[in-house]
Amino acid sequence: MTKLRVYDDTRALFQLPDGVIYLDGNSLGALPLGVAERVNRVIMAEWGNELIRAWNTAGWYVQPRHVGDRIARLIGAEAGSVMVGDTLSLKVYQALAAALDMNVSRKIVLSDTGNFPTDLYMAEGLIATLGRGHQLRLVAPEEIEASLSEEVAVLYITEVDYRTGRRHDMAKLTAKAHALGVVTVWDLAHSAGALPVDLAGCRADFAAGCTYKYLNAGPGAPAFLYVAPHHSDRARAALSGWMGHAKPFAFDLGYAPAGGIERMRVGTPPVLAMAALEASLDIWDRVDIAEVRARSLVLGDLLIAEIERRCPQLKLVTPRAHERRGSQVSFAFEGGYAVMQALIARGVIGDFRAPDIMRFGITPLYVGEAEVLKAADLIEEVIAGEVWRQSEYQVVNAVT
Amino acid sequence: MTKLRVYDDTRALFQLPDGVIYLDGNSLGALPLGVAERVNRVIMAEWGNELIRAWNTAGWYVQPRHVGDRIARLIGAEAGSVMVGDTLSLKVYQALAAALDMNVSRKIVLSDTGNFPTDLYMAEGLIATLGRGHQLRLVAPEEIEASLSEEVAVLYITEVDYRTGRRHDMAKLTAKAHALGVVTVWDLAHSAGALPVDLAGCRADFAAGCTYKYLNAGPGAPAFLYVAPHHSDRARAALSGWMGHAKPFAFDLGYAPAGGIERMRVGTPPVLAMAALEASLDIWDRVDIAEVRARSLVLGDLLIAEIERRCPQLKLVTPRAHERRGSQVSFAFEGGYAVMQALIARGVIGDFRAPDIMRFGITPLYVGEAEVLKAADLIEEVIAGEVWRQSEYQVVNAVT
Repeated sequence: MTKLRVYDDTRALFQLPDGVIYLDGNSLGALPLGVAERVNRVIMAEWGNELIRAWNTAGWYVQPRHVGDRIARLIGAEAGSVMVGDTLSLKVYQALAAALDMNVSRKIVLSDTGNFPTDLYMAEGLIATLGRGHQLRLVAPEEIEASLSEEVAVLYITEVDYRTGRRHDMAKLTAKAHALGVVTVWDLAHSAGALPVDLAGCRADFAAGCTYKYLNAGPGAPAFLYVAPHHSDRARAALSGWMGHAKPFAFDLGYAPAGGIERMRVGTPPVLAMAALEASLDIWDRVDIAEVRARSLVLGDLLIAEIERRCPQLKLVTPRAHERRGSQVSFAFEGGYAVMQALIARGVIGDFRAPDIMRFGITPLYVGEAEVLKAADLIEEVIAGEVWRQSEYQVVNAVT
Repeated sequence: MTKLRVYDDTRALFQLPDGVIYLDGNSLGALPLGVAERVNRVIMAEWGNELIRAWNTAGWYVQPRHVGDRIARLIGAEAGSVMVGDTLSLKVYQALAAALDMNVSRKIVLSDTGNFPTDLYMAEGLIATLGRGHQLRLVAPEEIEASLSEEVAVLYITEVDYRTGRRHDMAKLTAKAHALGVVTVWDLAHSAGALPVDLAGCRADFAAGCTYKYLNAGPGAPAFLYVAPHHSDRARAALSGWMGHAKPFAFDLGYAPAGGIERMRVGTPPVLAMAALEASLDIWDRVDIAEVRARSLVLGDLLIAEIERRCPQLKLVTPRAHERRGSQVSFAFEGGYAVMQALIARGVIGDFRAPDIMRFGITPLYVGEAEVLKAADLIEEVIAGEVWRQSEYQVVNAVT
């Protein structure tokens, strides 16, 4: 399989509308050109012609694990350790439930205030359902390391902060967690496809991520769950659906979990969405994630330098140190919401996260130096020219 | 909106391969012709061109509830009471968790041995997570009514049995359940699009269903959850994801449920799959479900009569009484697995469910009298000619 050079070869594999500089691939990745044809083929040739038989003949049934193996390569996971399906909210729920079950004498779930809220909400719901007196302890991201203790059952954090782009040290925190008997659950929403992840090397216990951001698999694309191979035959499947049963087609009345990662399947997999993901992975299979990372850092540095030089009003909230950064650059600015509206009107699409964060995602497969410099021009225009103060940009949309 | 005559107008709206008589729409519905174009439009025009903006501009964010309203009409539900997303396994889990929370002093979940296994497995998982001494009590389907008592917290059953096609009396059982203080959770997997359902009229508390069977929305299409309006502001969302938060885009650290059915959203909705569902509902919006039901009963009677006349070896396991039947006809036969393989080889696609049940789904939108008679011919050929005893039909596939 010929390798693709990042950007030089890959840019042409994405559909990007004219006049748009897309810096929001950290929220919804751009459309790979192969998706439409692949999804159409699954609809017409597989569903349309094979009908129910396609579960066998087109491999629908085994697809969630096979696709998981393709993702595994990008996150340093062992073959057979990643299962695709459902949403990230549900996958972190499954991971946390299994992790807590491995550490029943401890009651603290340690997370941080930079975790994505759905992870926290799902944990709240799980803790209420468990009713065993667990406590979700939230500390500042920089206090996570010092907050690890023998009281903590599970370390439950997102590697890269969705707002600031700050990155935790997975190897160091996992090692310290293990030394204290803490089980780890990592959310890779802003890691998978953004930077090299080494789950096996870090000896991470559980991890989950989504595929609609850097992996470019489309809106609402399925999530994935990683369970370390040495845990997967014992991990409790709290969402014990029939597809995770040892013998799903025996239709037994009682539940018995499948061996390994298969038990983390729940219901019927989303076949059409999986087709889009497969088409997107056709690109990722041929890309070196280390090259993506190297480019991302160069482009991130460039964007930071250009914005700081031109718009001193904006305050960088992303760490400058490469090893402490994901693949986005974020600035705080009181008028951030309006600035982003004005930028979007000019074709620079980033996004805004309350209360005052403007995010610019760096996705080197389809964003290069020219796009970054053009974006900097328009950011300068909007800020320096005070364009953002125009009333039309002050109106808050329903969804941002 | 012009009404469509069932079969006469609707048959041409589906792609069905030449030489195939499809009697498995109770497992995976056939492909509506409008799906491919609709999904392609969402991929190219919405995802491709609008990118992240499509959450607003294309209405992706509000779609799960709007699509829920279109399904509501088919199941006798109030507007604003149905939410689309995830899988049926997860939706029954949400429903059961909320229902148990409404009846905390009782510990019995009453279900029957005809319930689809994933419902039972998910209940087992929930009960283990709750750890409050709940018990899943399984009785024979015909014993459900007599087994309702003031000890029962939740009646948790599927209206139409996936194997036999036997139908529970929803109105009667719900009324008796309520008289005894029992909360009801109905699985409509084999009801929605198969027969008229009257959730509001029956005063059902919770219900869930899938859309890839009679609703023809494609493999792994999203499920739906119904919560009676008088419960929905109080129902606990056990899977408390960010999309069900009162203010998802405030990114608060603490969970606060949205009002009404919105709290039953979990994570990011599956936009591509939702497009297929919308295209399928374009047909359903124009069809009278009572006409579908009337046709289904006529066709079912015809298939029963023809098979019984020609193949006395097959034992009907579907109730003959119309009011006690769903939209499938099932026969028990020891060689059923091989018979079904031989039938599929001849283009008659039904399916097999362990241990010995052959299922033939009746889907009047694209199955008529001619198809039923042709299927009967081939069933006779395979049975009377003992074709099914040929060794090639004895091999068990991975997925059936």
